[in-house]
Amino acid sequence: MDITAYMTQVGQAARAAATETARASTAAKNTALLAMAQAIRTRAPELLAANADDLAAARAAGLDAAMLDRLTLTAKSVEAMAQGLEQVATLPDPVGEISDMKRRPSGIQVGKMRVPLGVVGIIYEARPNVTADAAALCLKSGNAAVLRGGKEALRANQAIAACVREGLRAAGLPETAVQVITTTDREVVGRMIALPEYIDVIVPRGGKSLIERISQGAKVPVIKHLDGNCHVYVDDAADPAKALRIVENAKTQRLGTCNTAESLLVARNVAATQLPAIARMLTDHGIELRGCEETCRLLPQAVPATEDDYYTEYLAAIISVKVVAGLDEAIAHINKYSSSHTDTIVTENYTHAMRFLREVDSSSVMVNASTRFADGFEYGLGAEIGISTDKFHARGPVGLEGLTSQKWIVLGDGEIRS
Amino acid sequence: MDITAYMTQVGQAARAAATETARASTAAKNTALLAMAQAIRTRAPELLAANADDLAAARAAGLDAAMLDRLTLTAKSVEAMAQGLEQVATLPDPVGEISDMKRRPSGIQVGKMRVPLGVVGIIYEARPNVTADAAALCLKSGNAAVLRGGKEALRANQAIAACVREGLRAAGLPETAVQVITTTDREVVGRMIALPEYIDVIVPRGGKSLIERISQGAKVPVIKHLDGNCHVYVDDAADPAKALRIVENAKTQRLGTCNTAESLLVARNVAATQLPAIARMLTDHGIELRGCEETCRLLPQAVPATEDDYYTEYLAAIISVKVVAGLDEAIAHINKYSSSHTDTIVTENYTHAMRFLREVDSSSVMVNASTRFADGFEYGLGAEIGISTDKFHARGPVGLEGLTSQKWIVLGDGEIRS
Repeated sequence: MDITAYMTQVGQAARAAATETARASTAAKNTALLAMAQAIRTRAPELLAANADDLAAARAAGLDAAMLDRLTLTAKSVEAMAQGLEQVATLPDPVGEISDMKRRPSGIQVGKMRVPLGVVGIIYEARPNVTADAAALCLKSGNAAVLRGGKEALRANQAIAACVREGLRAAGLPETAVQVITTTDREVVGRMIALPEYIDVIVPRGGKSLIERISQGAKVPVIKHLDGNCHVYVDDAADPAKALRIVENAKTQRLGTCNTAESLLVARNVAATQLPAIARMLTDHGIELRGCEETCRLLPQAVPATEDDYYTEYLAAIISVKVVAGLDEAIAHINKYSSSHTDTIVTENYTHAMRFLREVDSSSVMVNASTRFADGFEYGLGAEIGISTDKFHARGPVGLEGLTSQKWIVLGDGEIRS
Repeated sequence: MDITAYMTQVGQAARAAATETARASTAAKNTALLAMAQAIRTRAPELLAANADDLAAARAAGLDAAMLDRLTLTAKSVEAMAQGLEQVATLPDPVGEISDMKRRPSGIQVGKMRVPLGVVGIIYEARPNVTADAAALCLKSGNAAVLRGGKEALRANQAIAACVREGLRAAGLPETAVQVITTTDREVVGRMIALPEYIDVIVPRGGKSLIERISQGAKVPVIKHLDGNCHVYVDDAADPAKALRIVENAKTQRLGTCNTAESLLVARNVAATQLPAIARMLTDHGIELRGCEETCRLLPQAVPATEDDYYTEYLAAIISVKVVAGLDEAIAHINKYSSSHTDTIVTENYTHAMRFLREVDSSSVMVNASTRFADGFEYGLGAEIGISTDKFHARGPVGLEGLTSQKWIVLGDGEIRS
């Protein structure tokens, strides 16, 4: 297979389809989404059979249990996929939304209209449900999509792609509005990220190494979802009950998510009074504590942390702990070690809360709330294509709005510039 | 001079200063801007003397008249520079602005806070006034700036840089918040665009070739100001008086600006009735008409256009003209040939106006207004660092807001995720 020729053909088809998705009515897009959901329900047995073949091949190839788990579809997860499509249909259509119209002294009215980005390329790993999610978000935001899933999920992805095409057809939209790459050739990724004439933005979903590799080679903008080394800072003005509750939820509710807390900072003034109870709670949850010297003096169960620990996203039953002088050191520590994902302060002090909000340079900054809230659904975006730790364009949970841009519009009555 | 070592030092200083400019109060930033303006007024004789040295060297090097013109400072342009700084001081501070706060079912309040991008690198050519403008916009938006002007303007740029530092000092801000590169070594540009750890975004200001070169090599995002191949489409429902007035203003008010119209499209139904009068007006202004076959049949003064003409930003007394079947062909032509800068329709038909607004994929889309309005001042941004023809991040005139990002903020009362 000539990958360059194949990708050029995919790119040209996507670019042509993007013109149609950009001007598609909300009704047509929603019709397509609902028809996709219906097709997924109807064809659930086919999807599960395709997935069973993927799983058999993956087992034969010796893939580990975690990978097999991500790869597995069940009747329940297929139904969830269909419901996810229906939910995107209920979200407001961002395309064409006009905002900030102002009349200028010249007489013209100037404002902004929200428009699609064009063609979105998504590169992901084993989870087949990403195929449906990404198709839905790209279509609803008026974009065409080129989806390249992991090779392990090829059969299930193609079965889902057939449902997506069925939905597009039902709504009179071009089937090429969502194209799922049909080859597992790794060269596809290299081509996808180097086609600025056909693909406007790349969204990699997967491990940090995949994302870094793509970002380095990309000739188009990349919406990056890197790691989540999230912090909870227990301020000297923290309410102890809130601190205990928030640390517990942020660290222990789920260990493997990007918004899980990986590091705990405690103000020196309250370390002796609050840290032992927090540590006991964490130990009861089976969490290992890796602490600074002061932490280790206060907590018999803590082991010494290295410098590397403070940079680490464990995604495991481990937390790093540091006693800091107060707000200034906490902010400086977070801005140095955090991955700019999500950081929270627990405090009753107004000025500390405002300074933390203003000065911590992360995509989500919180006061008295668990880092676990950093999520498209919790923020009211309805769904997300990823969480961007970048500053350019989209930041934090990226929903429909992050897949759009705004152009300026001017409404005149024959005005000319003098 | 070891450019790598020099740029690392500049970059580290900028990164450190950016922490301070990000949290600087509005009052401190405005104090700095006003003190810079005062310093420029006080030191005007030094600035003019430095500029005279630059001009003498440029003349000796045989630079052309247009280049010398861009390089020249006068008492009037120095005063305009000072007033520009004062004007930026009057603009609202975008940093820390909180918007879209909404309470979620979980109890948390979620919204956005506007934050600086960090360190902005600006690469420009001969005009020394860009040094003051760019310094002002970067500082007011809370960023640190690294400015690399053209080698022809080195002496004037250094004199302006001294005034900028004086202003920063007066406000207690770090002098390294705005650094003007002190060497003319071309290697600086190559380093500037490849320092993602120190520079967050590059804004090239200059010719298309400079911008393309920088975009291709950059390892950081680039806010691109490419060419302005702007269109006026005279629809079959156009008011002839508005059409004549808008084409005249868009093409003839200034020939060399990026928002000048370079191409005229006319609906076939009104070509015979409206095009001759429009053509006569253009000819009276000394504009050469390069037309399609139909245009040439209607207009004795038109010469045949080539395919290339429709892609060309003339920046000269030439316009390309094409008769189109109607709205669909006009939109398709613009989306193919336009540089996505600014395009306008002249029409009294509501549906045509709405479709043009929605379907033309340019950074500014207008109805019944001259393309010449596409400008930061005319749009009410107060000032602009350039006009982006990109879709990602900033689009159209880029003012203070384009130099910022938004982070998510969450205000809680001890909420945890369930």
